Amino acid sequence: MTSADADSLLGPGWADSAAASATGDTAFLQALLDAEAALTRAQGPAEAGRAVTGAADAGRFDVPSLARRARAGGNPVIPLVEELTGAVGEEYGPYVHRGATSQDVLDTAMMLVAHRTLAPLLADLERTASALARLAAEHRDTPLPGRTLTQHAVPTTFGLKAAGWRALVLDARDRVTVVRESLPVQLGGAAGTLAAFSAYGAEDAPALVAAYAREAGLAVPELPWHTLRTPVADLAGCLAFTAGALGKIAADVLTLSRTEIAELAEGSGGGSSAMPHKANPVRSTLIAAAARRAPQLAATLYGSLAAEDERPAGAWHAEWEPLRDLLRLVGGAARDAAELAEGLRVDTDAMREHLDLTHGLIVSERLTAALTPALGRARAKALLTHLARRTHTEGRTLAELLAEEPEFRDLDLADLTDPARYTGSTAALTDRALERR
Amino acid sequence: MTSADADSLLGPGWADSAAASATGDTAFLQALLDAEAALTRAQGPAEAGRAVTGAADAGRFDVPSLARRARAGGNPVIPLVEELTGAVGEEYGPYVHRGATSQDVLDTAMMLVAHRTLAPLLADLERTASALARLAAEHRDTPLPGRTLTQHAVPTTFGLKAAGWRALVLDARDRVTVVRESLPVQLGGAAGTLAAFSAYGAEDAPALVAAYAREAGLAVPELPWHTLRTPVADLAGCLAFTAGALGKIAADVLTLSRTEIAELAEGSGGGSSAMPHKANPVRSTLIAAAARRAPQLAATLYGSLAAEDERPAGAWHAEWEPLRDLLRLVGGAARDAAELAEGLRVDTDAMREHLDLTHGLIVSERLTAALTPALGRARAKALLTHLARRTHTEGRTLAELLAEEPEFRDLDLADLTDPARYTGSTAALTDRALERR
Amino acid sequence: MTSADADSLLGPGWADSAAASATGDTAFLQALLDAEAALTRAQGPAEAGRAVTGAADAGRFDVPSLARRARAGGNPVIPLVEELTGAVGEEYGPYVHRGATSQDVLDTAMMLVAHRTLAPLLADLERTASALARLAAEHRDTPLPGRTLTQHAVPTTFGLKAAGWRALVLDARDRVTVVRESLPVQLGGAAGTLAAFSAYGAEDAPALVAAYAREAGLAVPELPWHTLRTPVADLAGCLAFTAGALGKIAADVLTLSRTEIAELAEGSGGGSSAMPHKANPVRSTLIAAAARRAPQLAATLYGSLAAEDERPAGAWHAEWEPLRDLLRLVGGAARDAAELAEGLRVDTDAMREHLDLTHGLIVSERLTAALTPALGRARAKALLTHLARRTHTEGRTLAELLAEEPEFRDLDLADLTDPARYTGSTAALTDRALERR
Amino acid sequence: MTSADADSLLGPGWADSAAASATGDTAFLQALLDAEAALTRAQGPAEAGRAVTGAADAGRFDVPSLARRARAGGNPVIPLVEELTGAVGEEYGPYVHRGATSQDVLDTAMMLVAHRTLAPLLADLERTASALARLAAEHRDTPLPGRTLTQHAVPTTFGLKAAGWRALVLDARDRVTVVRESLPVQLGGAAGTLAAFSAYGAEDAPALVAAYAREAGLAVPELPWHTLRTPVADLAGCLAFTAGALGKIAADVLTLSRTEIAELAEGSGGGSSAMPHKANPVRSTLIAAAARRAPQLAATLYGSLAAEDERPAGAWHAEWEPLRDLLRLVGGAARDAAELAEGLRVDTDAMREHLDLTHGLIVSERLTAALTPALGRARAKALLTHLARRTHTEGRTLAELLAEEPEFRDLDLADLTDPARYTGSTAALTDRALERR
Repeated sequence: MTSADADSLLGPGWADSAAASATGDTAFLQALLDAEAALTRAQGPAEAGRAVTGAADAGRFDVPSLARRARAGGNPVIPLVEELTGAVGEEYGPYVHRGATSQDVLDTAMMLVAHRTLAPLLADLERTASALARLAAEHRDTPLPGRTLTQHAVPTTFGLKAAGWRALVLDARDRVTVVRESLPVQLGGAAGTLAAFSAYGAEDAPALVAAYAREAGLAVPELPWHTLRTPVADLAGCLAFTAGALGKIAADVLTLSRTEIAELAEGSGGGSSAMPHKANPVRSTLIAAAARRAPQLAATLYGSLAAEDERPAGAWHAEWEPLRDLLRLVGGAARDAAELAEGLRVDTDAMREHLDLTHGLIVSERLTAALTPALGRARAKALLTHLARRTHTEGRTLAELLAEEPEFRDLDLADLTDPARYTGSTAALTDRALERR
Repeated sequence: MTSADADSLLGPGWADSAAASATGDTAFLQALLDAEAALTRAQGPAEAGRAVTGAADAGRFDVPSLARRARAGGNPVIPLVEELTGAVGEEYGPYVHRGATSQDVLDTAMMLVAHRTLAPLLADLERTASALARLAAEHRDTPLPGRTLTQHAVPTTFGLKAAGWRALVLDARDRVTVVRESLPVQLGGAAGTLAAFSAYGAEDAPALVAAYAREAGLAVPELPWHTLRTPVADLAGCLAFTAGALGKIAADVLTLSRTEIAELAEGSGGGSSAMPHKANPVRSTLIAAAARRAPQLAATLYGSLAAEDERPAGAWHAEWEPLRDLLRLVGGAARDAAELAEGLRVDTDAMREHLDLTHGLIVSERLTAALTPALGRARAKALLTHLARRTHTEGRTLAELLAEEPEFRDLDLADLTDPARYTGSTAALTDRALERR
Repeated sequence: MTSADADSLLGPGWADSAAASATGDTAFLQALLDAEAALTRAQGPAEAGRAVTGAADAGRFDVPSLARRARAGGNPVIPLVEELTGAVGEEYGPYVHRGATSQDVLDTAMMLVAHRTLAPLLADLERTASALARLAAEHRDTPLPGRTLTQHAVPTTFGLKAAGWRALVLDARDRVTVVRESLPVQLGGAAGTLAAFSAYGAEDAPALVAAYAREAGLAVPELPWHTLRTPVADLAGCLAFTAGALGKIAADVLTLSRTEIAELAEGSGGGSSAMPHKANPVRSTLIAAAARRAPQLAATLYGSLAAEDERPAGAWHAEWEPLRDLLRLVGGAARDAAELAEGLRVDTDAMREHLDLTHGLIVSERLTAALTPALGRARAKALLTHLARRTHTEGRTLAELLAEEPEFRDLDLADLTDPARYTGSTAALTDRALERR
Repeated sequence: MTSADADSLLGPGWADSAAASATGDTAFLQALLDAEAALTRAQGPAEAGRAVTGAADAGRFDVPSLARRARAGGNPVIPLVEELTGAVGEEYGPYVHRGATSQDVLDTAMMLVAHRTLAPLLADLERTASALARLAAEHRDTPLPGRTLTQHAVPTTFGLKAAGWRALVLDARDRVTVVRESLPVQLGGAAGTLAAFSAYGAEDAPALVAAYAREAGLAVPELPWHTLRTPVADLAGCLAFTAGALGKIAADVLTLSRTEIAELAEGSGGGSSAMPHKANPVRSTLIAAAARRAPQLAATLYGSLAAEDERPAGAWHAEWEPLRDLLRLVGGAARDAAELAEGLRVDTDAMREHLDLTHGLIVSERLTAALTPALGRARAKALLTHLARRTHTEGRTLAELLAEEPEFRDLDLADLTDPARYTGSTAALTDRALERR
């Protein structure tokens, strides 16, 4: 389903994505209608269920009008029930929304929207993880500078880097999967007691909740959760996590595709309105933007846990847009991450060249270790600090300077000072990480 | 201007408000076009300016298509410039967007949207303040319980309460006004050097910025501010403040309109989908929801101050939707606050009755002061703590219990224990606060 | 362990709690030392392990001096390693911190602090849950008004309310438990390759990580996680959740202990510096304050997921204080929640009386259902809306007004209008919820 | 004043700073005592004022004990008043805290702490701005690549970059200065009515507020602001702004001091516990960490604006630690920024060399403009896009390729393709920006 309300001028990060169409106003309206229809089917009679199901077609309703009329009661369910009742007609109209409160339907719809949005999001995480697995395997032994606090530290491999990214994506996938499978329907009636359903004839109101869940395709809640907002908080947590996990990848790609570094490039760069030559890392940029926003959106949702009474005045209303925003943003970011990972271009020559930028100091740690048996740790460190200074002032490499020191004649300096031979356990770590499914 | 994209099913707090139509995609597109037209007018030639101005009509462009095509370059200006250039035609097309970068236009448009949205927002704050002034004057001497940490403390007046609300609203108005008047155009070209404008023939590029500002109706910036985001941060601050100021009023109205308290009621309550009798404080609820969300939206904007380079990869993109959301939310909340203040119903009888709920203990502070000269502070406190316990266990009032103590025969207990006569400087404070304009 | 640095004037919510002493600077220093000692024990030789373990006593180090010297390198591990090396002495000093980077030790220490703080936190959640289970069972059939959007809606029971609180507490317990058990050691060396450990002689560096984890009493990580911050994000999520879960309870207690409602009261109220009679709900207040802060602290931690390179410049440093703050705040809140739940006083008479505050309208939903067969839903609603208005204007109860309508003679109005008989499935829901362990 | 509680192992960003000692528990305790003493002096009698002032010495009180006893009432003022009253003695003890509520004293102390912390913070901002002015003047004409979305765009100058940083610092200074001068005392008594002060004999309670403000050295508030939190929100805003402004500088320094870029370096780099050669940009790192945290701390403070009643249950308590954290963090960041700006090393050669990294494409925008008269904009863009591709594939410069095109013989290609001659209005912008004081 693609709908006119699904993209926004200000949302290139999620425009044209599965998340956009799954969270637009039309999709949300359809979810509200699906919730109403599932409830009537669960309560019966069967004819009423069929009638409501037949009428529950978002295309027949006027979204902007409903949006405006939502003001009076503070939510869109009130005008929607009125219209749906009318659309169902005199005979079965009274079965619409019977016993329910607005929040039953809106919460269920929100869970349906989340459930539907998370399916393509998970698929995109899988695509991303697969592409990263390929990169990690291919570059298992591709050395590049390990960077810490912006400075070259010791060598690492691009394979380990990609394997680390993948581990985060799998962490995200696992967290989202668990949450998605737990998303429940909401049903409690006016104050969460299920009383009205009994008043309208349900013999076993708790059983009605289970039937409703079956009809809606969601989980059965332990209790009505009008103000027990675990499902919303869980969504907040797994989505903020996913945004951050993808944001880590984007942060690295942005750094490594800088003009001066250029070890990575997005498959196809974004153009510029001013400069014909520019190829901007647009996907990383938009993912990074999502990662900057998601934590605060999640914070609003966590904050809404502290909701007073049986149904609250504000805490609930504050959830709707942030939850939708999170779903969109992270859904869009997952789409961009998949494209990014699948198209990423790796310049292994640039990586190799950069290993020499510090004149060999990138292996100073290794040399410290190698010299420690002879000199002791303190003297070894002091010597290397001294030589480090000389590489800067004299423009020579550490290997050259060391070769002049007679006491190191027995060391295999060619091996010891080769950055590509100081990648530690990167291969073993990469292999092990790739075993995870 | 009302547009189809201006309301959302999930945004009853801002639906149908001036802020909704001023921040919708169509309004935003118009602002982008206005920025382009102002730039061409400022650069000349005059005919080109007229041609671009004539073509700059949002109604002629396809918003969803632009939204989708914004993906490739990461912002909507790139496809828009292409379309606008075509619409202007061969002769003057080349003058469209000449020398500018996407961010010049998008930032200017954002400032235009803010400028336009803040005008009705300020008007609603003025309406709110006026209504609160009337309430404060009318209830200058209406006593009610002062409540602290949820418990009755000492009496206060509803006049002082309303005067305090008004003081916050005026603080908000003052902050928003200053920020609104400072909103600048953006113009710097690709990296903020204005170089392209000179390359295209501008003799004095800084003067072009001033001309652009005049054409756009915005302020002249000190420097190109692509990564000097003071205007956005200032908007964040004044809008988060306004949301909180209105949120304070909402918090009080929600409390005082509780069924058990019922000292206040919204002019017309919202209905319920389940219970015919309910009159919900809907405006306060939606304002409270806005106040829960605004701080985190502002946090994202403050976070975007830390933007690297001449134009950043992510920090800027993370601003667009949160800034629009803030404008909408706070604009909607100001509208609801005006309605709330103008329609608020005050039950002075309930207020008066509640002063007796503590059996007179609400004036225990006063009695402590009155008894201190005779007993010393420590003994006075101890006695009142003792009597407080007796009011609970014996169900009698503090006045009755005190009357039995022979040593207080000379005190005017009727006066000392009358809550309505222990309102301190509330009248003076209210009068003084109302002098502020 | 209680230390002088464990409490703060501005932290009454966590002062004097297990979380305070487990997160103070001295406790943190001890954890840093424990991490160093575990690493040396894992690497050997055994004598070095014993020597470092023996020297690793926080009491011997000068915390303020270390704090100040942490500036130069940006973290406290650098000066600490220097001091610890000296303390261990010439022979085994070189084995201190061998191969490790500061972040290995600081992250491991942070996980140790979290692991240690979460143990009493979990115990307090269990205490809270047990006390709430007792309340739920005891008040399984205690009716009180269900409140929605601040207004009485339909009756519910205090048992269901307490059962709901408990469900949230158990959700928190489950989430914290899972996260606590997963907390890993950190070990990667300078850039996460484990290279230095091999350079210093480790035959199987990944196996060293496992040995280190055994010595430290933490889990084995999948990969070095210097910039794969799943453990920190998971802590953020479960702690923000717990704060919100407890915040929900606090919000309800604050509401229900208002002077006008007084259905609940904290076991022992806090005094006031000004008013001898006041008994403030201090625990709820401090829990509510924690719930207001936790989401934003968690947001900072989620934001730090987007950390560039092998070790980042800022994202990591931004985690330390917020994570400690979260542990403290939520630990303190759990302590207060346990005291709150165990001491909560319930005024069932007040609850019962309040059911009549709406003159019977609290059961209007039930009456709508009861009258619908005879009148149809629309007419039933209209009639009740009309009668609702009359109860207000005439000050009579709904039961009285209904009794005057001849068409309802056959209805059992005494039953239908008794709020205590309209509690729906509360008993069944409560029973079921209490089965959860 | 330096106190043992002023530094923390986890706070290298603010350890050993003026902000650390000005916000420690001892400093906070002294501010509480100063507030009490100022109040007694303002109320009289003079002897009592002298007695309380004499006793109000933080050194005589036991901070940890007060911290623990703060729990019972939820704030530290209650036990402090008890102790201070005892310390003052029998005669004048009763004048301690007379008529005040805890919040009067705690809020006033918070404002005193803010007032005191902001003085050195402002001095550090001035130092920073001066150092940046020197850098901007010195490097007014130093060209370097302007970078957008991580890619070289067009040339700019380091002078303009430094001038832009300075503009942000001055914006921060201006905002902090205004807020600092507005910080008011708090005085309202139990519920903000000033009633108790009159009960204790004040003839003109509002005048007492002014006298209190004079004694405390703070501003006179318009109204008691127990739940009108403009001063706290204003602090939040200006501190979040300052953190972000400094964070922008840090983001740039971190980028430009990367090993591959190395155009900038901190005056003295931080060492590493593992690698002898490393010089980490520690100050930028710690500033960046502060900038990541400040927005969320500010969000909590903005959120506390929505505080119910005359004094709230939670919103106020949630302010204390975040406000202190903000003051510390931003104070420490300002200290680091001053050191950073004063010690920054600029490698103008590296900047110049990097201008050639794109083989001349960095001036492609200029060439587009220059070729447009001859070719039209579209063809000019197309040609340059074509040549841009050839520079990549053939490894030749744009100048070389253009020289081969016969139609450009008349163009001064040496000038047109020299990046150093395409810096636009940077000099004029820098000069103008430096005129601001």
